[in-house]
Amino acid sequence: MPYVGAFLHPSLHALQIYGANTNVGKTIASTVLCRALRSRRKGAAVRYVKPVSTGPDWEADDGHITRHAKGVESTCLFQFDEPVSPHLAARAAGRPLPDATIVQSLHACLHSHASRSLSQLSHTLVETAGATLSPAPSGSLQADLYRPLRLPVLLVGDPKLGGIGATISAYESLRIRGYDVDGVVVFREGDAHADRRYGNYEYLREWFWKEGRRVPVWGWEMPPERHVDEKQDEKNLSGYYGGMENVEEVRNVMGRMEERHDERIKEVQSLPQRAHERVWYPFTQHQGRTEKDIMAIDSAHGDFFQTLSPPSTSHSAPESNKASESSAPPSLLSPLFDASASWWTQGLGHSNPSLAMAAAHAATRYGHVMFASGAHEPAVGLIEDVIQTLGNERLTRGFYSDDGSTAMEVALKMGLSAWERRTGIARGTDKEGEETLILGLTGSYHGDTIGVMDCSEPGVYNEKVSWYRGRGFWFDYPTVGMKDGKWRVEVPDSLKAELGEGMVADELAGVFDLEARQDDRKRYEAFILETLKTEIQEKGKRFGALIMEPVILGAGGMFFADPLFQATLVHTIRSNPSLFSDHTNPSDPRDWRGLPIIFDEVFTGIYRLGRPSAASFLGVTPDISAHAKLLTGGLLPLSLTMASESIFNAFLSAEKSEALLHGHSYTAHPMGCEVGRESLRKLGELEREGEDWGAWKRDWAADREVGQGEDSRSGQGLASTSTDVWSCWSKQFVGRLSGRDDVERVWALGSVLAVTLVDRAGSGYTSTATAGLQRKLMAEAATYGWGVHSRVLGNVIYFMASQTSTSEVLAGVETMIWRSL
Amino acid sequence: MPYVGAFLHPSLHALQIYGANTNVGKTIASTVLCRALRSRRKGAAVRYVKPVSTGPDWEADDGHITRHAKGVESTCLFQFDEPVSPHLAARAAGRPLPDATIVQSLHACLHSHASRSLSQLSHTLVETAGATLSPAPSGSLQADLYRPLRLPVLLVGDPKLGGIGATISAYESLRIRGYDVDGVVVFREGDAHADRRYGNYEYLREWFWKEGRRVPVWGWEMPPERHVDEKQDEKNLSGYYGGMENVEEVRNVMGRMEERHDERIKEVQSLPQRAHERVWYPFTQHQGRTEKDIMAIDSAHGDFFQTLSPPSTSHSAPESNKASESSAPPSLLSPLFDASASWWTQGLGHSNPSLAMAAAHAATRYGHVMFASGAHEPAVGLIEDVIQTLGNERLTRGFYSDDGSTAMEVALKMGLSAWERRTGIARGTDKEGEETLILGLTGSYHGDTIGVMDCSEPGVYNEKVSWYRGRGFWFDYPTVGMKDGKWRVEVPDSLKAELGEGMVADELAGVFDLEARQDDRKRYEAFILETLKTEIQEKGKRFGALIMEPVILGAGGMFFADPLFQATLVHTIRSNPSLFSDHTNPSDPRDWRGLPIIFDEVFTGIYRLGRPSAASFLGVTPDISAHAKLLTGGLLPLSLTMASESIFNAFLSAEKSEALLHGHSYTAHPMGCEVGRESLRKLGELEREGEDWGAWKRDWAADREVGQGEDSRSGQGLASTSTDVWSCWSKQFVGRLSGRDDVERVWALGSVLAVTLVDRAGSGYTSTATAGLQRKLMAEAATYGWGVHSRVLGNVIYFMASQTSTSEVLAGVETMIWRSL
Repeated sequence: MPYVGAFLHPSLHALQIYGANTNVGKTIASTVLCRALRSRRKGAAVRYVKPVSTGPDWEADDGHITRHAKGVESTCLFQFDEPVSPHLAARAAGRPLPDATIVQSLHACLHSHASRSLSQLSHTLVETAGATLSPAPSGSLQADLYRPLRLPVLLVGDPKLGGIGATISAYESLRIRGYDVDGVVVFREGDAHADRRYGNYEYLREWFWKEGRRVPVWGWEMPPERHVDEKQDEKNLSGYYGGMENVEEVRNVMGRMEERHDERIKEVQSLPQRAHERVWYPFTQHQGRTEKDIMAIDSAHGDFFQTLSPPSTSHSAPESNKASESSAPPSLLSPLFDASASWWTQGLGHSNPSLAMAAAHAATRYGHVMFASGAHEPAVGLIEDVIQTLGNERLTRGFYSDDGSTAMEVALKMGLSAWERRTGIARGTDKEGEETLILGLTGSYHGDTIGVMDCSEPGVYNEKVSWYRGRGFWFDYPTVGMKDGKWRVEVPDSLKAELGEGMVADELAGVFDLEARQDDRKRYEAFILETLKTEIQEKGKRFGALIMEPVILGAGGMFFADPLFQATLVHTIRSNPSLFSDHTNPSDPRDWRGLPIIFDEVFTGIYRLGRPSAASFLGVTPDISAHAKLLTGGLLPLSLTMASESIFNAFLSAEKSEALLHGHSYTAHPMGCEVGRESLRKLGELEREGEDWGAWKRDWAADREVGQGEDSRSGQGLASTSTDVWSCWSKQFVGRLSGRDDVERVWALGSVLAVTLVDRAGSGYTSTATAGLQRKLMAEAATYGWGVHSRVLGNVIYFMASQTSTSEVLAGVETMIWRSL
Repeated sequence: MPYVGAFLHPSLHALQIYGANTNVGKTIASTVLCRALRSRRKGAAVRYVKPVSTGPDWEADDGHITRHAKGVESTCLFQFDEPVSPHLAARAAGRPLPDATIVQSLHACLHSHASRSLSQLSHTLVETAGATLSPAPSGSLQADLYRPLRLPVLLVGDPKLGGIGATISAYESLRIRGYDVDGVVVFREGDAHADRRYGNYEYLREWFWKEGRRVPVWGWEMPPERHVDEKQDEKNLSGYYGGMENVEEVRNVMGRMEERHDERIKEVQSLPQRAHERVWYPFTQHQGRTEKDIMAIDSAHGDFFQTLSPPSTSHSAPESNKASESSAPPSLLSPLFDASASWWTQGLGHSNPSLAMAAAHAATRYGHVMFASGAHEPAVGLIEDVIQTLGNERLTRGFYSDDGSTAMEVALKMGLSAWERRTGIARGTDKEGEETLILGLTGSYHGDTIGVMDCSEPGVYNEKVSWYRGRGFWFDYPTVGMKDGKWRVEVPDSLKAELGEGMVADELAGVFDLEARQDDRKRYEAFILETLKTEIQEKGKRFGALIMEPVILGAGGMFFADPLFQATLVHTIRSNPSLFSDHTNPSDPRDWRGLPIIFDEVFTGIYRLGRPSAASFLGVTPDISAHAKLLTGGLLPLSLTMASESIFNAFLSAEKSEALLHGHSYTAHPMGCEVGRESLRKLGELEREGEDWGAWKRDWAADREVGQGEDSRSGQGLASTSTDVWSCWSKQFVGRLSGRDDVERVWALGSVLAVTLVDRAGSGYTSTATAGLQRKLMAEAATYGWGVHSRVLGNVIYFMASQTSTSEVLAGVETMIWRSL
């Protein structure tokens, strides 16, 4: 798949000329700049590119450049005859022109310019068409079309009446698309002209400099008015251009543009060293690390980071390779597919403009506003939307916090207090000092704050944390994976006596067909009951909540738990309330029974596994569930802990101190909530109408009917949940992977693909079995145009797409994985 | 102080007409709409307001409306003769016109229209001048000027070539200023016209409807071209207007606008009930609460929330009051000064446009990107900026997390591990199971996650949390406050034998003159040493860190700790390392000695107390400090834990498990970091150049020299820190408050004013002594035009300005406080 990333090159300064409006003098400004560049650096190549031109004007423009800026090479990439807006011209010509084609052609053109510019800095000016947001041939807005390249911008301001507003609006439209606007040129008239009346230049110069914007504005003499006599017109223009060449305001522009080019390069090149000195990285052992281990990110777009290329590939071609002199040195930036979905957060692509607009609107309608006793539409609306999305009739209340870890702290407080209050074991009255514990699964992980660290069994993540102590009991369980084309439920050896030998299925949906697995279910239930009796009755433990990541236990190691085991665990707890306390359980089916059931859907929820809620795979409705990561589509931190009315009611009291005394400063910040709403809207649209989604579902459903099935969401027990089990990773590819000798097993679900490599040196978090593969996938960038940035957990390497990744890109990733293994 | 809030009225629909460019037909569109409204509702008043007009055009516009839309009352509020942009016209006329004056006049005008519209819905169209972002008389951008009123917008699109881009850019500029754009009208030409070539209407209609925007676009027939003969011109126009009256596309507009008006009212009115059903509020006992306790926030701007007025004042005037029929029913919205700074977060005002722009740019340059092993400019730059801002030479490293609580969890892990590793008490080797504890002060609070809850002594916040247990020792200490015009350091009775009787000073700076208080210091040091010996040597406790909020202990009760006690505590720990372990302390003065010193500056730092760092008041450089809240100026969650190289080095090891294994998904999200940088830039500018800041410093320095003093930031010991002790609350007002019988004591520092009321019913968090005052301050809105929304902590009511609050607004708050007491 040809993918084109941002363009930044040490030997070519490419500058994109946008106009604040149509007819503001972009071509004249470009000509002036071309001439200034030619005279500034003798011998330096100066080129002019018009990517899209409509009407016969291109001939004129080309001629204009050729005539008035001698020695400048000019190119038009796509030409339409009809003298109308590109989207109409493309339609009229019956020649659709996809955005990607234009961007790829322009990139190739710039790359070719760069390859001919090894000795000194050369320049290419790229002139856009019409106003900043005029439509492209595909109908996209032009500034969106070119965004992947993220060229620096020189904006030609609007000198006319109303032009102040037009220029600032155009600037804002560029900024909120991630562009750097390096300068503004505006034509100003002399004493005799209207400029003195409009004052555009004076106003804009001040406005663009203040409030930290620091964008220089240059006022240039207005070109002569068009003369009816063509010859005279040419002569007038020629005089104008000649005069402009020595004007300081003109020379300053290109000097400043070159400075900005250098600054940008220095900025991204300095990042590794500056970060190495100043940043204390998360989850990172710093000993032995150097700045070379730091990936400098210049920008990101869609599924890709634009990262500083490693010095070996970007700075110069190897000397031994003589042929390299004729090929271009690679771009300073390499696109890397973000295969960790930036720690599992990305759903709608980096730099998504509609999420950014939602954020900016909330930021300026509200900013952040007090939420204790306050209410605003984004916060209330998002809870309503999440309730509808999850489809769990128990969940009626939302509590906001900032991240998955705090959402789980809240869930823990909710669950333990609800249990203690119903059973009368209120804290403070329990004089024995015995603690209420939680039930969970081994390999779980719920976040980094100490309270929720205590919800996981001792292990590498927590054993060195001073205040950590595991407060719970954790079940071992069967896991799911594919090997040699078969889906297998594998039972740990230690449990085979109780749980049997597991199962083998051709289709993943078979594993999720819980109704059909009655024998397993009985064995699981007996084992769970027996274990609980031992822990409670023999060992005297007291449990206050079940805490579980449904289906996939992420940070603990990407374990795919047998959904039947998880479902049976919940079912057993709810069916045997007297195990946990003598208190009579209420009869309302929406009340919690046995223990409050807490699902940590921070990773697994909100479409990560292909469904709005991971709980639906188990046919279980938890009493509490925690949501974060994809909740904001991947843009900024926000989390929600959803709870049932029964849990909520446990905190009602005449005493303020009985309330849930928790709340962070930015609780329910409007930006996060509004972005969350926009994100859910878009994800819901993808679920209903996404073309790729449809294809993936068909791919995974190939051998069976995709029926509507019963609505698995409302099930209380072990309803069938086998429909709608699919992945964006190709079924055939997963099958092929599973057949390799070096692959222990593999699974794919929703947007996640996890590959466990055979690790001959011994397994575990500290394993390095996958490091070689990671390196190879990154290095693809040097040869293939883009690479893959992945994360590993021990000997598991995983690949996580966003919900807007395309089949085309994912096929490319699959190719690279296969090649790199 | 007259302050004008957002306008939303049940009986008046005010609609603001913005143009995508100048000369796009705003006046003609307004005229068409006026006529449509007149014919739609017989008898309903329709009015037209031009707030600012330049040149003789107003006469023409007015005449135009009067002639072509009979029965429509038209008004111009401010008129300049010069036919140029308002900012030039005002300058030429030598008549500066502040934004506030225009907004107040327009508000008064709308209010007067509303007062005459009790029987049925009436309409006022407000036509702006030029393009959306054209300059106002003051030079502000027009869309910024009118933002306080936040009227719904009808945008008149640009039908010309380039108009697609101009219209979308204008829309974006409105959205990123918090406006609701309810619809777009664009003039389209018939078959014979250029419209078919430009296709603006067709394109815009589709664009504005898709991607969830759902903004309707109406295409109207282009008005006739201006005829040279004035009479004929009038006749043509008259015919045009007559024809437009019955066009469905015209009738639809006003129907839809009225619907949106109703929807907006219903939205804000429904919020309390919807929130009551769905939201689990932070720190809130829900029992007995009704939806009336919920403040619905429609928007916010500057220091003010725009909140739904209580039903008694907004829905109708009391029947007994006959006179009320002639006065207007109050607006649906009441402005409330945000006196909790939205839980202490606000620094640069709600809906700050430059913070929003920084956020939107980062969102579209990066979105969120992986930070483990990655580096991006906003994240690295913000750490560099914070290091410079804090001026603490020890702090060299930044660790990102999401909120104050997680920042303190990180600080705790850093501190305890650093101590345990140096002293050889590595977790796991300490077989006795003894825990390392922290030292702190009573009344401290460090956040809501369980780990940092354990850092505070048992109390109302944590006693009901199942897994809470205090793990530390907490000192009592002298506190500071003013009574009867004198600043007093008050020693708790239980400590008077050891610490003496405290002190009295005329100036707050006297309390901070630590050098001068040598006798107190000696007493404090002896007491601290004695206590530590008892706890460590006699009781056998093991301490691993000191954790302290410098100067003000916020959530615990707004306690103003004697800075000398805090400074002496640090000094004593650092001077007596052998107390804590036998390990030899390193000689580098930047290394931690005795214990790692952790300052929780989440509330007190980043200018909240008037200085970049609260530690500077103590002349102490902590080894670790935590920052959040004001770090992003009040817009969104982000936190930084800063650490010294000595702390950082404690985690270096060949073992990955020895690293700080902490990291949230959105660690160092670019939006937060970029907003943080913009916020620090602006706060630094205020510190250097803020006019109000200068006046406040002079106010508090009245009786003494404001010298440069020594640079208190670099001091290691007890350097003088007495300069630069000031508040934005007036010194005279604080003095007067302190003299009241019903005030126990008061203090002000930086932007915080805390008033402890005499509580005859007994003190504590659950006290309600302050509730009456809170209610009165809210109710001011009904009589005074705006009120104050405050938060209390027990019998302490506090008032917290943002760093951009003006003296004028604060004087108003002071007046209300005095009146309400």
